[in-house]
Amino acid sequence: MGRPVEVSPLAWKLHLSLPETLLKGGESYAEGLLRAAEEAGVGELRLSLSAMRQLPKVLSSALDVTLTISDGRVISVEGGDTSGRLYGVALDLGTSKIVGHLVSLVDGETLAMASTENPQAVHGEDIISRITFALDGPGNLDELRRLLLEAVNRVLETLCAEAGVAPGEVYEAVAVGNTLMHHLFLGLEPSSLARAPFNPVIRQGLSVTARELGVAINPAGNVHLPALVAGFVGSDAVADLLATGLCDSEAPALLVDVGTNTEVFAGDREGVVACSCASGPAFEGAHVSHGVKAVSGAIERLRIDPETLEVDYEIIDDAKPIGLCGSAMIDALAEMWKNGLIDDLGRLNLDAETSRMRAAADGGEFVVAWSDAAGTGRDITLTQRDVEELLLAKAAIYAACSIMLRRQGLKAEELGRVYVAGAFGSYLDPESAVAIGMLPDVPAERIVFAGNTAVAGARMILLSTEARRTAEALAEGVRYHELSLDPEFNREFLNAVFIPHKEPERFPTALRLARRRPRSTRS
Amino acid sequence: MGRPVEVSPLAWKLHLSLPETLLKGGESYAEGLLRAAEEAGVGELRLSLSAMRQLPKVLSSALDVTLTISDGRVISVEGGDTSGRLYGVALDLGTSKIVGHLVSLVDGETLAMASTENPQAVHGEDIISRITFALDGPGNLDELRRLLLEAVNRVLETLCAEAGVAPGEVYEAVAVGNTLMHHLFLGLEPSSLARAPFNPVIRQGLSVTARELGVAINPAGNVHLPALVAGFVGSDAVADLLATGLCDSEAPALLVDVGTNTEVFAGDREGVVACSCASGPAFEGAHVSHGVKAVSGAIERLRIDPETLEVDYEIIDDAKPIGLCGSAMIDALAEMWKNGLIDDLGRLNLDAETSRMRAAADGGEFVVAWSDAAGTGRDITLTQRDVEELLLAKAAIYAACSIMLRRQGLKAEELGRVYVAGAFGSYLDPESAVAIGMLPDVPAERIVFAGNTAVAGARMILLSTEARRTAEALAEGVRYHELSLDPEFNREFLNAVFIPHKEPERFPTALRLARRRPRSTRS
Repeated sequence: MGRPVEVSPLAWKLHLSLPETLLKGGESYAEGLLRAAEEAGVGELRLSLSAMRQLPKVLSSALDVTLTISDGRVISVEGGDTSGRLYGVALDLGTSKIVGHLVSLVDGETLAMASTENPQAVHGEDIISRITFALDGPGNLDELRRLLLEAVNRVLETLCAEAGVAPGEVYEAVAVGNTLMHHLFLGLEPSSLARAPFNPVIRQGLSVTARELGVAINPAGNVHLPALVAGFVGSDAVADLLATGLCDSEAPALLVDVGTNTEVFAGDREGVVACSCASGPAFEGAHVSHGVKAVSGAIERLRIDPETLEVDYEIIDDAKPIGLCGSAMIDALAEMWKNGLIDDLGRLNLDAETSRMRAAADGGEFVVAWSDAAGTGRDITLTQRDVEELLLAKAAIYAACSIMLRRQGLKAEELGRVYVAGAFGSYLDPESAVAIGMLPDVPAERIVFAGNTAVAGARMILLSTEARRTAEALAEGVRYHELSLDPEFNREFLNAVFIPHKEPERFPTALRLARRRPRSTRS
Repeated sequence: MGRPVEVSPLAWKLHLSLPETLLKGGESYAEGLLRAAEEAGVGELRLSLSAMRQLPKVLSSALDVTLTISDGRVISVEGGDTSGRLYGVALDLGTSKIVGHLVSLVDGETLAMASTENPQAVHGEDIISRITFALDGPGNLDELRRLLLEAVNRVLETLCAEAGVAPGEVYEAVAVGNTLMHHLFLGLEPSSLARAPFNPVIRQGLSVTARELGVAINPAGNVHLPALVAGFVGSDAVADLLATGLCDSEAPALLVDVGTNTEVFAGDREGVVACSCASGPAFEGAHVSHGVKAVSGAIERLRIDPETLEVDYEIIDDAKPIGLCGSAMIDALAEMWKNGLIDDLGRLNLDAETSRMRAAADGGEFVVAWSDAAGTGRDITLTQRDVEELLLAKAAIYAACSIMLRRQGLKAEELGRVYVAGAFGSYLDPESAVAIGMLPDVPAERIVFAGNTAVAGARMILLSTEARRTAEALAEGVRYHELSLDPEFNREFLNAVFIPHKEPERFPTALRLARRRPRSTRS
């Protein structure tokens, strides 16, 4: 998603026809050029060294020139009228994936999208293990920075090739990410992120030239890293707030960005509160027997027939199934619970009348797909341990939501929107998410699956200086709540391990579903 | 020379004892540090990326830190109190020589001086041939820039080693030079300097990080290139004005910076006019049979005994003589003229009663030093052609002085000071310079040999932000007069080829000397 913005990027182009006298009077090239720009109604400008270096060559063959201007600085001078070609790139530096969108800064059109795995994964899947690695040896920080930069530059190369744009025509980049990715991209040692109070080295947004960072756009171009909220709430979250419009919303809203760390924001245009909780990588496919990311072959949604207990599923790219991704895990929990295959504590009902339920090590398993249909040649199952792992994850997410609502003095039914972002591919069933008690109980139509809102928010910041200012104000304005210091969190978490919750009256919708469950499994 | 300035450099250090709570509150390192600085009474500061990168390491071991601040930006954070160690370097980028002074930015003391030949000389001795080379092939500009940068970095290395200073402790550099050196140092193509109206690419002063230019001081340090006056009047001239104090002088003064191109400034604190003339490299030793630079073994002053016509000379380093440097050439012309060995047109008097005067190809020669005394094993002579070459040079210099005085409405006797700078080593005899009509006829005590005023001016700009502002205003305020477009120049020049001048009444002092000349040579 992402909202439309007025196209007013930081970088813009100015086409100038210079007077013949420019090269004949007593002025320097720089003075003549800046005066001509001023006469064209532009305010006072400064010249970058690289633009100065271009002047003699360009002015020797043309009096018709195009300036690229960023933040009051002329960063490039080209011969002829190139004002129609000015590009920017929005980047989401994810722990597992780098995503980039190439955008025309003239009309705001998105010309290409590309992504690549984050190659830092060889040094740890999650944030904590990468921080540990970064601090473990003298060259490690540089190594992580190099890997990230190479991945970003690969994405940029793909984007430019796809859109037929030269890297030198890309003059702006906006990169959002969690605080660790932000620090690694800038080469900042993340030691302070390793211990309470998890303060980042810098919170404010900052701009660095592409040359200084080594980003493969025009070297004089500007790479902007929007402000962070706190140690575990990065600029990707700020981009989420921007893209969903939560920060401008009249009605209170909730934003849940699910990942290994899940960030939750609650608020409206009057103010936003935020927190981050460790929800584990289960919904991203890790620590679940047949869990996979939302890749080709992943089962992404499923239903269980209440009569036959047979499973019907949909697979990404219609391939042979290789495992379950996050959205299917949520569906599976919800469907198994509704159909009496697990109870409110998530215990498998081994007496269920289906061959799909069977005994196994550590308490049994439920067969989602049989081996003859599977791309792996093995039965795809959900085990008792998998269910427990998923319940821990959903409990942490709900507890965070619950505490955020309470701090804002909100009840679930007052929420105009619940935005869900994160590693769910292109789909998440809102009813399933409510049924298992992962999200507060609101009508399904108020739950919006927001996709990659981080890159959408980055694109807004890229395209609009107003959005850039808003992002800075947002990061400043969001009140961060440290869950690990909140005495209520543990009880909230324990109560949320139940399906849907230890206090089921919080989930009237789920209770209506439960009333249809076979009597034997009702608690 | 160079005048004392209040030490108020752009870069300064701030020692801070940070509160224990810095690392415990909810602020980022950057916020905490900047707030502590603000509480110490410093205004609003920004942090450079490289300073940010230092924060985690420094703050993990010390709460006692020292910030280096330049132009409102924290460019470095060091542990402990290092506020006593902050250095800067003043550089003069000459066509033939690179000179550097290492200065403490705390107390203004000069700690080391060093110089090296400009290795660009392999691509041409003078400015025009280097411009030609620079424009001759695609890699040539880079080659000239690389040679200059390497020489500068060699000078910096020597300075630091001599003073026991680490390059990382040098946070500021100010580099002055003629417009070509300025352009080559910045990597600006000098094509516009090759043709009228000889406009530079940029005139204003500018600052670039050492990292961007590749200058071997602290990479986050600032390299400042003061403003230029015009295509042939560089920032070295601005530094001259500053160092001599001409720009602040109540009495009118003249500044003559002799080189292959000679710059002449006339004025006072009310205003300054400037011009540049091609005076050739004769005074620097080129195009003169036994001409040398002011190096070890150069004859730097000489007298001719009126009775015996024997020559008495002084040699740099008391070595065996290898040739005449500029100051000795001026002495030689003056002494030969006073003693009837040349006439007012510079013709050698081959009838003079001394074995030192002898016939030779192209009109004879005068032996300054005999081969048995010379370090070269050959007689050191001044030929008829040499004398002509020198008269052309002195005539151009005087013509420029004369026109500058006229434009300021000044007579020679109104001049409070005549400053002479340039390639004369450590000495120039003012009486000789007036006797041959190179400088306007003022009393000898008003003629000040100013030595390397360029590096002295650079040092003032380095040490004092007020001097830096003055330099910028000076470059802006000096009225440049294009001699090549002045219809009076040619006549002035022709009249000045005479000794002392076609209108000898302009040189009463010289005339008094002439009255003592043997009757036979008087015109």
